[in-house]
Amino acid sequence: MALTLAQLADQLGAELRGDGSVPVSAVATLEQATASDVSFLANPRYRRFLATTRAAAVILTPSDSGQGPANELVLDDPYRAYGCAVRLLSPPVPVRTGIHPNADVDNGATVHPSAWVDAFCQIGAGARIGAGAQLGPGCIICPGVTIGDDTELVARVTVLAAASVGARTLIHPGVVIGSDGFGLARTEEGWEKIPQVGGVSIGDEVEIGANTTVDRGALGDTVIERGVKIDNQVQIAHNVHIGAHTAIAACVGISGSTSIGRHCMLAGGAGVIGHLRIADNVTVTGMSMVTHSIHQAGVYSAGTPLMHNRQWRRNAVRMKRLDELFRRVKDIKK
Amino acid sequence: MALTLAQLADQLGAELRGDGSVPVSAVATLEQATASDVSFLANPRYRRFLATTRAAAVILTPSDSGQGPANELVLDDPYRAYGCAVRLLSPPVPVRTGIHPNADVDNGATVHPSAWVDAFCQIGAGARIGAGAQLGPGCIICPGVTIGDDTELVARVTVLAAASVGARTLIHPGVVIGSDGFGLARTEEGWEKIPQVGGVSIGDEVEIGANTTVDRGALGDTVIERGVKIDNQVQIAHNVHIGAHTAIAACVGISGSTSIGRHCMLAGGAGVIGHLRIADNVTVTGMSMVTHSIHQAGVYSAGTPLMHNRQWRRNAVRMKRLDELFRRVKDIKK
Amino acid sequence: MALTLAQLADQLGAELRGDGSVPVSAVATLEQATASDVSFLANPRYRRFLATTRAAAVILTPSDSGQGPANELVLDDPYRAYGCAVRLLSPPVPVRTGIHPNADVDNGATVHPSAWVDAFCQIGAGARIGAGAQLGPGCIICPGVTIGDDTELVARVTVLAAASVGARTLIHPGVVIGSDGFGLARTEEGWEKIPQVGGVSIGDEVEIGANTTVDRGALGDTVIERGVKIDNQVQIAHNVHIGAHTAIAACVGISGSTSIGRHCMLAGGAGVIGHLRIADNVTVTGMSMVTHSIHQAGVYSAGTPLMHNRQWRRNAVRMKRLDELFRRVKDIKK
Repeated sequence: MALTLAQLADQLGAELRGDGSVPVSAVATLEQATASDVSFLANPRYRRFLATTRAAAVILTPSDSGQGPANELVLDDPYRAYGCAVRLLSPPVPVRTGIHPNADVDNGATVHPSAWVDAFCQIGAGARIGAGAQLGPGCIICPGVTIGDDTELVARVTVLAAASVGARTLIHPGVVIGSDGFGLARTEEGWEKIPQVGGVSIGDEVEIGANTTVDRGALGDTVIERGVKIDNQVQIAHNVHIGAHTAIAACVGISGSTSIGRHCMLAGGAGVIGHLRIADNVTVTGMSMVTHSIHQAGVYSAGTPLMHNRQWRRNAVRMKRLDELFRRVKDIKK
Repeated sequence: MALTLAQLADQLGAELRGDGSVPVSAVATLEQATASDVSFLANPRYRRFLATTRAAAVILTPSDSGQGPANELVLDDPYRAYGCAVRLLSPPVPVRTGIHPNADVDNGATVHPSAWVDAFCQIGAGARIGAGAQLGPGCIICPGVTIGDDTELVARVTVLAAASVGARTLIHPGVVIGSDGFGLARTEEGWEKIPQVGGVSIGDEVEIGANTTVDRGALGDTVIERGVKIDNQVQIAHNVHIGAHTAIAACVGISGSTSIGRHCMLAGGAGVIGHLRIADNVTVTGMSMVTHSIHQAGVYSAGTPLMHNRQWRRNAVRMKRLDELFRRVKDIKK
Repeated sequence: MALTLAQLADQLGAELRGDGSVPVSAVATLEQATASDVSFLANPRYRRFLATTRAAAVILTPSDSGQGPANELVLDDPYRAYGCAVRLLSPPVPVRTGIHPNADVDNGATVHPSAWVDAFCQIGAGARIGAGAQLGPGCIICPGVTIGDDTELVARVTVLAAASVGARTLIHPGVVIGSDGFGLARTEEGWEKIPQVGGVSIGDEVEIGANTTVDRGALGDTVIERGVKIDNQVQIAHNVHIGAHTAIAACVGISGSTSIGRHCMLAGGAGVIGHLRIADNVTVTGMSMVTHSIHQAGVYSAGTPLMHNRQWRRNAVRMKRLDELFRRVKDIKK
């Protein structure tokens, strides 16, 4: 795949500043680009490389223009345009059809003829695999599960009973959907399991990262609405509801029956306790714990800043006496 | 499956207030229940739905009685009773027997004739699979491992060398039991691996959530006693000992050689460092780090509360100077 | 396997104090050792067991010598020597060769004749499996991937496109290497995926723990240099670079494009945000979040200490007003 800069500018809707006849065949970072690459500047941390990049061209904003030797493709959102450029310059991903002879597909399952089911997949009775769906090796699709059209399960994805996955959704290896939630009633001796009999409903154009887990509802469904993007090793408990177009970074945990709004962002390692309601357009910064419902859009944080260990130890011991300090200051004021 | 309210009250040991002849066939939440459902009130957050629920009956405590139109099943522990009702109204889970032709079972393995081994399972020499055990697709059982009677491995569970799993235990997909602990000795250049040669001992009636990992002991065993309940994505390091009936919520990490008592509760995202001893009946709240042994039952916490990001930034910068503030206040007092 | 204490002392380079003719056949802890075991003292917490151990001999430092009845193997690094003793006394791990009939190996893949590929493995076109490599059951090796000589993938390891794994590397079950990074561009409606087209480069003598995930680069590679040791359930995002001989404990998350130096140690549950640079020889203590680059070697910490919940609640509410307190004290001083 190669395009001239003029062709690329046209496809991206960018203003070309420079020689449109130059061909490019790949995208690379400013530091690593060579003369056949197009590069981009989206994060100001990397602006210092503009002057020395060997890229054939750089995708950048009008305000970053003119600071280096490369040809330029100028537009307002270089990050998104860089993604488009990668897509335009990459060979198309091959779509396969049929069922691998080493797959175990129940006679009562429905696999669309245009779908692909790879080796070591098991598909149970009553499951439905949509048109163009791509199931990589080792996927387990339990009885009654629905996988939407053009959805891709990369490899080793497990989808348990009573789950439905929408169309054009992408699920990475090791993901478990529909496992039992952590529902336990106390007894005199210990714990009694609450049977988990709800389902999971996953919308269209969702992405779910490697080794993420999504529990089935206890009663009713765990719901992930359309366009939600979930990173690796995220834990979504039973009956959680995630609103459309919310993005959840790696290692986040969301406890049972919590409802997250639309267009929210949860940064890496954040946690949300159970039975809360989080409004639309809420951002939670990394490793913060959300312990109460949030009714207003905005950015929320918890945690202490990083310190030298010696400094931290001196301060940490004081945190245990903070209330005492407040009282002492109040006394002094009097 | 359908029962009259009179039958259900009898089975649950509840006092029936209302029409015992009404049939119910499922359990649903107060909000979602219809006329053929029984519902329950266990969490006061949902009390406001009592007045408007369309459920045929509600399982609730004496003190919540009389606040809505539905028939009532009155008893002291509605949450546990709701679990029983789900069990009574659900069709029995089918138990299968035999070995799927696509499983790879070593001639030296012993699989009880009443057990089930699904496709793409591998069972090594000397492994023993107990009566009624159910191994879903893709489970890997290494040589010498024992799986107890009526234990279920849902799918894609890996049990490595020198592990024994008790009876009536439930293990969810993606779990890894018996992986090497993180044992490293420093050398001049870097790290030298300490061979991990211990085992894992898992008791009866344990539950282990999806994608949880339990390392084998370095020497001696990692031990999970009977009735322990573990949620998804929990990490249990080498030679950890978990006392009976302790419950561990999702995303908890427990470091090597730590011993947790009986009837403890570790909330989501908590962490415990290595070589500690935690007494019985200790509760650790969410995302707290335990850095010292705990000798007394009780509830323990760490962490800062969630704030608006702007407020948090103003406060967080001060946390680095907390010790200085204590000294300053001391000076003022003088 | 059995050795006399004289033979063992010779192999370990230890000074023997006691009866060199005594045979030992295994290693055990001071508490659990019997008369045929050698034990060791590496952590002072366990010194109290020296007086009562029934071990045939104890590996210990000169300063711990003479405190118990056992024979002694005296040297400077008992922890490392204990690892050596385990290795000397363990039966050799069998190395297998060939391809299991239930594996699915593409005709275009190259598997060295001395390598082993177990059941339910899939190996794609153009993949290369090195001499002596051991692939346990259920591993998925995508087209074009390279696995180095004598590297072991224990079971159910997924290595996706464009990854190369070095020699003598050990990867535990459930690991996913080369999954897509979390690259998203905002649009008016929600999010647009940035294609992830980079690779993963993993060096020699690396260890990667169970259910850990390592994303491919967006452009260019995610790099894990030689001798890096990674525990279970660690998340390494796209384009992260980990310097040689760095050790990363369980449940750590490292965000995209961050570069960690050589000989660093990240304790369990730590997190590092994206686009940072961490110097060599940096240690981050457990569950700390690193929010800025670190230019100097040393130990860094964040977080609050564990308290009784009642004490914590009194203090935590004050943390929200810490800035106000600083201002109040400043006023008083005036």
